[in-house]
Amino acid sequence: MSPTSQPVAVIALHGGAGTLTRRAITPAQQSLYRETLTQILQAGQALLAQGASALDAVTEAVRLLEECPLFNAGKGAVYTSEARHELDACVMRGSDLASGAVAGVRCLRNPVLAARAVLASGSPVLLIGEGAERFALARGCEAVAPDWFGTAERLAQLHSVQASAGQAPALDHDAQNLLAALPTSPLDERSKFGTVGAVALDAQGHLAAATSTGGVTNKLPGRVGDSPLVGAGTYANDRTVAVSCTGMGEAFIRALAAHDVSALMDYAGLSLADAAHRVVMDKLPPLGGRGGLIAVDRHGRVALPFNTEGMYRGWARVGAAPRVAIYADEEDGTQP
Amino acid sequence: MSPTSQPVAVIALHGGAGTLTRRAITPAQQSLYRETLTQILQAGQALLAQGASALDAVTEAVRLLEECPLFNAGKGAVYTSEARHELDACVMRGSDLASGAVAGVRCLRNPVLAARAVLASGSPVLLIGEGAERFALARGCEAVAPDWFGTAERLAQLHSVQASAGQAPALDHDAQNLLAALPTSPLDERSKFGTVGAVALDAQGHLAAATSTGGVTNKLPGRVGDSPLVGAGTYANDRTVAVSCTGMGEAFIRALAAHDVSALMDYAGLSLADAAHRVVMDKLPPLGGRGGLIAVDRHGRVALPFNTEGMYRGWARVGAAPRVAIYADEEDGTQP
Repeated sequence: MSPTSQPVAVIALHGGAGTLTRRAITPAQQSLYRETLTQILQAGQALLAQGASALDAVTEAVRLLEECPLFNAGKGAVYTSEARHELDACVMRGSDLASGAVAGVRCLRNPVLAARAVLASGSPVLLIGEGAERFALARGCEAVAPDWFGTAERLAQLHSVQASAGQAPALDHDAQNLLAALPTSPLDERSKFGTVGAVALDAQGHLAAATSTGGVTNKLPGRVGDSPLVGAGTYANDRTVAVSCTGMGEAFIRALAAHDVSALMDYAGLSLADAAHRVVMDKLPPLGGRGGLIAVDRHGRVALPFNTEGMYRGWARVGAAPRVAIYADEEDGTQP
Repeated sequence: MSPTSQPVAVIALHGGAGTLTRRAITPAQQSLYRETLTQILQAGQALLAQGASALDAVTEAVRLLEECPLFNAGKGAVYTSEARHELDACVMRGSDLASGAVAGVRCLRNPVLAARAVLASGSPVLLIGEGAERFALARGCEAVAPDWFGTAERLAQLHSVQASAGQAPALDHDAQNLLAALPTSPLDERSKFGTVGAVALDAQGHLAAATSTGGVTNKLPGRVGDSPLVGAGTYANDRTVAVSCTGMGEAFIRALAAHDVSALMDYAGLSLADAAHRVVMDKLPPLGGRGGLIAVDRHGRVALPFNTEGMYRGWARVGAAPRVAIYADEEDGTQP
């Protein structure tokens, strides 16, 4: 874990943070999450081992997380208050601070690839809505029908949230049945901050970060959280650190959580562990900022702090076994 | 200018930065810009003198700048590549980091008031597109027809930019005539980074910042710059500073320009002048970040640095005459 002159490539990822619900968790459900995280870590690890850039590794890891309906990004994204999907993503390269992001897109299968196309274009950083969709489609990103993202579980979550907020008519029978089956995951999906993200250091010593999300269940149409915003939910700078956040997006925006970790390291001389702890444990909670972040610094150190009861998380150094964890009381292998 | 235990309320504002074009500038044109800036400073100054909050003062100053067709925000906003208007704005309160922002709105007369309504709601921070419009209209913001924002000068600028980029068909006769009359302002409107913004310290010692823009002429539909992004184009924190930026938005996003000024003061112990200079003169140029910013710190010090040939700018302390300047070789009354 200590820094070396020749850093070993490493990737870390998260699949959201939130409230722990021990009831209704079967060993099989837990295993499904752990195995999926491990597989995606291995995919990123393999890329890094082949000499891929950190940017390629985090893009591919987030694409795989988007493809997996277990997580709130891409396929399996949560619903807005109007029962639609509005997706956000961001990628950033630490070597030159190149960045690309999309927000409020509805028909792009992999928002992270759209963000990557924006980065590659070299001109805009953030594109929103239909303009972002047209830009991405013109650059070869894949379109899907709006209902491609939906799953029965997510729709039941929307109905559950709306019912508890008094916003919804009576649930139909199908939704009632689905609701009775919730939660189906180790973290309570109704109070989880769903986001996926990855950070990596490559063999050339470069950092990168990527984040993607469907936002929060029952969100206002047009609401954008921290995920696609450079410095809020996503940041990478070869001088310091790569960061991807998950949590109450508004607090992470107001705290500039990702950039603040970098600034504390760069200007106050804090270690990665101290800077990440300060932001997650001291600065975010007064703003209502429940959640966490994953970070890799330029020496290859890893930090995965969160202030909730759990965070789907893992990391893998090239040449070593991946480590995966969900709960706060689990050892995730990182060191302070 | 030196800090006192009882700071005097102060407001500063900008109306964009850019390339200086000395040809075609008449004394009357220069005077119009200077008088307008002075009047808006006086309006903000009067509010602060009456005990208004910094947030109210910057909101009103930016609303007045939006109403003025001389500046690229609200009425007089530039056109997108599709000859439409897409407007962005942000407000932030330093006492509690409360923030509100809208991006890509097309029918709201005063985007800064929509941003203020988002802040007041206490829940979302950033709303985009139609969702932002519906949210603001439901809270009493005024709608206007899409052509309300347009001016003949801005349309001629679009045609000029598109013609030089080989993107446009032959100009019609009206546009040719208008083009021949350009530039009509001290800064070359075709290479100006149009934004308006205000920062203030109130008598209670609280800071606030507001920024509003139409973006850049001929921008891609959906492109969002730094103005509506907390920490990029707009930031306020009572611990440190209030900042509003204007310039090549993409570079200001990648640099987290506004938050970086605050972080340099907070973590590296730099003075306002040194922190603002570092960001504008050292950190932004390597990213292509032409432009500038206005800043007021918690002691009431003012900094208005820019790395272009000019920036429409001014500041006014309660009880003293406003200072206004455009060019780099003009004394604006601030001290390093």
